[in-house]
Amino acid sequence: MTTRYERGLARQAELGGGRRQVYDALAELAPDLPRLAVEFAYGDIHARPGLDAARRELVIIGALVTLGDTDRQLRAHLTSARNAGLTSAELVEAIMQALPYAGFPRVLNAMTAALDVLTA
Amino acid sequence: MTTRYERGLARQAELGGGRRQVYDALAELAPDLPRLAVEFAYGDIHARPGLDAARRELVIIGALVTLGDTDRQLRAHLTSARNAGLTSAELVEAIMQALPYAGFPRVLNAMTAALDVLTA
Amino acid sequence: MTTRYERGLARQAELGGGRRQVYDALAELAPDLPRLAVEFAYGDIHARPGLDAARRELVIIGALVTLGDTDRQLRAHLTSARNAGLTSAELVEAIMQALPYAGFPRVLNAMTAALDVLTA
Amino acid sequence: MTTRYERGLARQAELGGGRRQVYDALAELAPDLPRLAVEFAYGDIHARPGLDAARRELVIIGALVTLGDTDRQLRAHLTSARNAGLTSAELVEAIMQALPYAGFPRVLNAMTAALDVLTA
Amino acid sequence: MTTRYERGLARQAELGGGRRQVYDALAELAPDLPRLAVEFAYGDIHARPGLDAARRELVIIGALVTLGDTDRQLRAHLTSARNAGLTSAELVEAIMQALPYAGFPRVLNAMTAALDVLTA
Amino acid sequence: MTTRYERGLARQAELGGGRRQVYDALAELAPDLPRLAVEFAYGDIHARPGLDAARRELVIIGALVTLGDTDRQLRAHLTSARNAGLTSAELVEAIMQALPYAGFPRVLNAMTAALDVLTA
Repeated sequence: MTTRYERGLARQAELGGGRRQVYDALAELAPDLPRLAVEFAYGDIHARPGLDAARRELVIIGALVTLGDTDRQLRAHLTSARNAGLTSAELVEAIMQALPYAGFPRVLNAMTAALDVLTA
Repeated sequence: MTTRYERGLARQAELGGGRRQVYDALAELAPDLPRLAVEFAYGDIHARPGLDAARRELVIIGALVTLGDTDRQLRAHLTSARNAGLTSAELVEAIMQALPYAGFPRVLNAMTAALDVLTA
Repeated sequence: MTTRYERGLARQAELGGGRRQVYDALAELAPDLPRLAVEFAYGDIHARPGLDAARRELVIIGALVTLGDTDRQLRAHLTSARNAGLTSAELVEAIMQALPYAGFPRVLNAMTAALDVLTA
Repeated sequence: MTTRYERGLARQAELGGGRRQVYDALAELAPDLPRLAVEFAYGDIHARPGLDAARRELVIIGALVTLGDTDRQLRAHLTSARNAGLTSAELVEAIMQALPYAGFPRVLNAMTAALDVLTA
Repeated sequence: MTTRYERGLARQAELGGGRRQVYDALAELAPDLPRLAVEFAYGDIHARPGLDAARRELVIIGALVTLGDTDRQLRAHLTSARNAGLTSAELVEAIMQALPYAGFPRVLNAMTAALDVLTA
Repeated sequence: MTTRYERGLARQAELGGGRRQVYDALAELAPDLPRLAVEFAYGDIHARPGLDAARRELVIIGALVTLGDTDRQLRAHLTSARNAGLTSAELVEAIMQALPYAGFPRVLNAMTAALDVLTA
């Protein structure tokens, strides 16, 4: 039987995005935090059926742009979104779509943070 | 030639969601606010090519759940999202997908606000 | 010598806005909260020289619209802003000016909350 | 062996706070949301050793006051905090302590929402 | 007839603030984002009659301090505010005025970000 | 008689956390901002009786993690919290406790910012 940790890890492997560096930095002080990120954010939530990975990433992008102070997460999720099949042009549109709801500063910061991921 | 107001109005008509009541309430005090909502949020942004309406609504749902204090907008956009082809079950998944990013209070409030729209 | 409580109370009296009802509701459970609102928000900050009351209210309106979940405070400060000499039309412009920074949901909620204050 | 759902439910039972009404309202549309609230928020997090329940509730109160638009959650957690041994006077202090970080509107709203819970 | 792009560009030229560097960085990936910033934020909103540029900047400063994660935007708008006639001392007061609403961390970050602009 | 500035300064001295560098940087442009931080945040609020310093710091940590864009403040308060008697392991738990309310991005950022303070 697959545990939710295994299910989350498999989902992260499919999606890519390079979360490993942050997780490793926390491995000694707070090992349960990266473990719970895998188990909950990916095993319990992202791996749920009923909505494909690409559409889940669009919800996440809307959330991260709006939160602010999430450059690192945004870059990881844009990479995941591309691996899930969204093109760079579609992701530019997704970030633009946040403009009327999150405003220009959040969207300008997000697009700037996205530059190297989306032009790669 | 279509103006951006006409383009925005056409997009809103396709999407539904019942923004008219709020717009009418503001018609005397601040008529430019509903006009700019139509022109900018719909004419300039939502009607852009490159990402279909359903996927745009997923970004918006991620943004609105995260912002908080947006029950009215969330209900309008869930209606729009259904008109754009997303099922009620997919929208429940979209709201659930915000959990690791926006937290339980925002998601519990959003799902509660969504109840009547998504069970209709 | 004027205490900062007296200075704050005098400033509130000039500005109006009807904070008394909230303060009275808290008078038994947390009397220091309304006292500190008078002393700090008005005595220490609002009553400072170097920027007149009307311009201070514009900063506050920008802050309150952006925060969200502040309908009651917004109505109080719009009343204060009018007493400080800003017209209803100028306050509609001030709320509109938050659009590119705080987004449409926050501004639509704020303008709706402002309706009865600004059309009075 | 105790599942995390059972562990979460036991923790919620100890803490009280009356989340059942919200959970029941969502039972048909989104049954996994209240289940995950129990499993993750209580079973995975709140029931962790290393910090007692009362001190966990202080962190939560700081978070909820700051988020805004969380009156329902705040009332539930103030009840839980009292059941965990904090007095009403200590909880007034906890809410006051958020003032320099979350500002007066958030704290005035929170204290107003807390009135009936803390004077009961 | 002046287009809203031209009107926005003229307004930005009056206000200064050096947005060009960010806009240029996005020119290849997302050229519509800087174009819409000019058209909407400046052409549609900032250039509206009914409130002068200096008072519009006070609303914007209140919004940006409260949002957080907006150091770059804040520096641009403080420069614009000075060009619109506000003194450095008045802008210090404007940032201070956000204290009771946005709290100390936001205001301390904003004042620190403002240091080189306001002491220039 | 002790002034609130003296009371605030004494509290800060007990708590440590190294705010002096930020305060000094603002000493010329905005000397009243660090003064009011001492007087209000520490003299008026933190030094109140009725809740000990360690428990006050838990509320503050919940607030700062949730606000975001507060790395500097978070490091200062984690230092204060340790000086108030909380262990590094308890502070890891406190940050973890914000997960269901503030979400993973805020908590991952906070734990990363806390690394050097909590492993010292």
